[in-house]
Amino acid sequence: MNFNPSRDFACQLDTQDELASFRSQFVIPDPNLIYLDGNSLGRLPKAAAERVSAAIAEWGSDLIRGWNKGWWDSPARVGEKIARLVGAGPGQVIVCDSTSVNLFKLVMAALALHPRRRRIVTDTLNFPSDLYILQGCVNLLGGCHEIVRIESADGDVTPDLDALASAVDENTSLVTLSHVTFKSGYLYEMAAVTGMAQRKGALVLWDLCHSVGALPIELDACNADFAIGCTYKYLNGGPGSPAFLYVRKELQEKVTSPMWGWWGQKSPFAFDLDYTPAPGIARFLAGSQPILSMLALDAALDPLLEAGMDRLRRKSVLLTGYLIYLADTLLAPLGFTLGSPRDPARRGSHVSLRHPEGYRLNRALIEEMNLIPDFREPDNIRLGLAPLYTSFGEVWEGVERIRRVVEEKRYEKYPKERLTVT
Amino acid sequence: MNFNPSRDFACQLDTQDELASFRSQFVIPDPNLIYLDGNSLGRLPKAAAERVSAAIAEWGSDLIRGWNKGWWDSPARVGEKIARLVGAGPGQVIVCDSTSVNLFKLVMAALALHPRRRRIVTDTLNFPSDLYILQGCVNLLGGCHEIVRIESADGDVTPDLDALASAVDENTSLVTLSHVTFKSGYLYEMAAVTGMAQRKGALVLWDLCHSVGALPIELDACNADFAIGCTYKYLNGGPGSPAFLYVRKELQEKVTSPMWGWWGQKSPFAFDLDYTPAPGIARFLAGSQPILSMLALDAALDPLLEAGMDRLRRKSVLLTGYLIYLADTLLAPLGFTLGSPRDPARRGSHVSLRHPEGYRLNRALIEEMNLIPDFREPDNIRLGLAPLYTSFGEVWEGVERIRRVVEEKRYEKYPKERLTVT
Repeated sequence: MNFNPSRDFACQLDTQDELASFRSQFVIPDPNLIYLDGNSLGRLPKAAAERVSAAIAEWGSDLIRGWNKGWWDSPARVGEKIARLVGAGPGQVIVCDSTSVNLFKLVMAALALHPRRRRIVTDTLNFPSDLYILQGCVNLLGGCHEIVRIESADGDVTPDLDALASAVDENTSLVTLSHVTFKSGYLYEMAAVTGMAQRKGALVLWDLCHSVGALPIELDACNADFAIGCTYKYLNGGPGSPAFLYVRKELQEKVTSPMWGWWGQKSPFAFDLDYTPAPGIARFLAGSQPILSMLALDAALDPLLEAGMDRLRRKSVLLTGYLIYLADTLLAPLGFTLGSPRDPARRGSHVSLRHPEGYRLNRALIEEMNLIPDFREPDNIRLGLAPLYTSFGEVWEGVERIRRVVEEKRYEKYPKERLTVT
Repeated sequence: MNFNPSRDFACQLDTQDELASFRSQFVIPDPNLIYLDGNSLGRLPKAAAERVSAAIAEWGSDLIRGWNKGWWDSPARVGEKIARLVGAGPGQVIVCDSTSVNLFKLVMAALALHPRRRRIVTDTLNFPSDLYILQGCVNLLGGCHEIVRIESADGDVTPDLDALASAVDENTSLVTLSHVTFKSGYLYEMAAVTGMAQRKGALVLWDLCHSVGALPIELDACNADFAIGCTYKYLNGGPGSPAFLYVRKELQEKVTSPMWGWWGQKSPFAFDLDYTPAPGIARFLAGSQPILSMLALDAALDPLLEAGMDRLRRKSVLLTGYLIYLADTLLAPLGFTLGSPRDPARRGSHVSLRHPEGYRLNRALIEEMNLIPDFREPDNIRLGLAPLYTSFGEVWEGVERIRRVVEEKRYEKYPKERLTVT
């Protein structure tokens, strides 16, 4: 598409947007706020707000009976909704716990499948918590595993695929990567990387946090072994909503969770004294799930299912392409460089713009310009474009505010020291 | 106190109840429903309903900024409220994840402190999920630990304390027990058992699920090493609200969590590639917490703190004593026996009544009598008396309905086969 930098052109793109009507399914109290951080915390779907109110009423009147009326089954039921977004057949996805806890379960399960292989391969583009979990697993297993962390050759924008392929050898038990990397938004070719690793006998675990809900994922078709993901980014489940995990059908009876809790027991209400894992994916449950947060997520998924991942991806590619065009045209002269892949086939739904003053610019954008991006060290301003509710007009206005905050030097009054929480 | 079996006497007890006014702080849509299952899921505090509505509004308008306005700090902040209920000084309690996940973390941490000791001591009165978690930990560590499970001599009502003391030896790394047992409501003497185990060099981990919010707990004064607990029973946090864990101050720098997630990292937003545990109790966090459920709990704790554990315990002892009196007088002739300790000093805040037809009776009580207890195999009808909102009139009416359901044989139409979920 031939873009142009006028505001009118943004309006024209909005007029042609087949998903434009979905924006009205979200609570948007301040229409002047440009929110480009849906890749960190998705906006509030009206349906989620209503579902939580209903859940509160259920707690008040159903009391303990609520567990029999859809609470107990929610990890599997909500899991099946997510399954449709990630190309997984039934019985392979379950919603529970946090991403890090689920990663721990699946890494331990994977390593137990390959007791003699002692190498784990990942990269420096992976989310740090994933690397920490790996380090903790290795520590727990006595330190005899080696974690190979492939470095990016271009400052954490794209991975070094050759180095990755060379690192995976006949001693490699597990390859684990972020499908879309948290900083640059690089999108791995899932089928190719999975095939490469599996040909050497390794298992593959994908972190889908930054891809689920933003683009079509085909876990079954790619023959992925394991996957995890959070639900509060593009899935709009709300702050800290429970995460999900996927285990390929054929592996399920061969693996166990390291955490043998009663929700993963074959007959949880028989109260047997000895653990027998539940059949299938349910064995990866441990304890009780936070139902208010779970039901918010349950409702939040419906607009995504209605929109469909193919349409969402088409709009996402157009949004990020448009943003990059505007950045090239209007922001590059002010010192910004692109911190994300130019090829849309290798890009998720967020774009990082790098600037030496990125940290202070990000703060000034939030506090002075009513624009919310987020910042990732050392110099990345991340702009998340959630295709379900982000408009082209917002992208145009966001770039305009970034231009102004630099030209008007409105960031200079902020300290360069980092705050602890972003 | 000299009880009598008349309804008037129940009214008199309610008139004298210094905590009676707290009942109005709860949402009670059906005043004719007798709810005696607050030991499974506490009633809905009005403050919790309001806090969740506010949290939904925060999500809608603060969006990602909510993390800096009280979400990110909530595990520690809510933990400090619970600390005041369990006799813990600051910096020792944190709210996160589920009880089973937290037990897993602390068992793994405890066993790592005693690598040469290979015995874990618990009992058959412990909640099955706790036993499963222990079995999973032993499996993970290669199976070279032995779990000694002390049997009760009287059908799971009271523990065999002599057998327990004999089982703890110089090879014992960990003793872990439910402070109040889930079935009979037996209350362990925390100080005595902790001292006994520690004199033999073992660590002690208490599961507080059935005691927290029901009676005063003195973790610091008892020198407990570790504790865990859920928050949806007497703490009224809502279905599946996040659990808590306690690690004694002096142990904190000696232990690590097996799950090295970013919330337990020293500087989570520096995004270092290598894990360094946070100082103190925060190192037992892993991933993001479910904020809607967390904030419901946050508000739910205030009425408990206002009432105070000493007053709550006084009322609880009176409630359970009164119930046992009524059961002795009115239900024993119908085939009920007491499945809980008679000594109030050894009893929590729920009472189990055993009956050969317990399963069908429990079902008929729920479906025909508008009374909610719960059932635990093989024959226990559990009646939970939450001193914050259970009235003496409800206890009287509950016993009356139990009497009628038996005398009118209204349970006979229900099948004896168990449903899967209770």
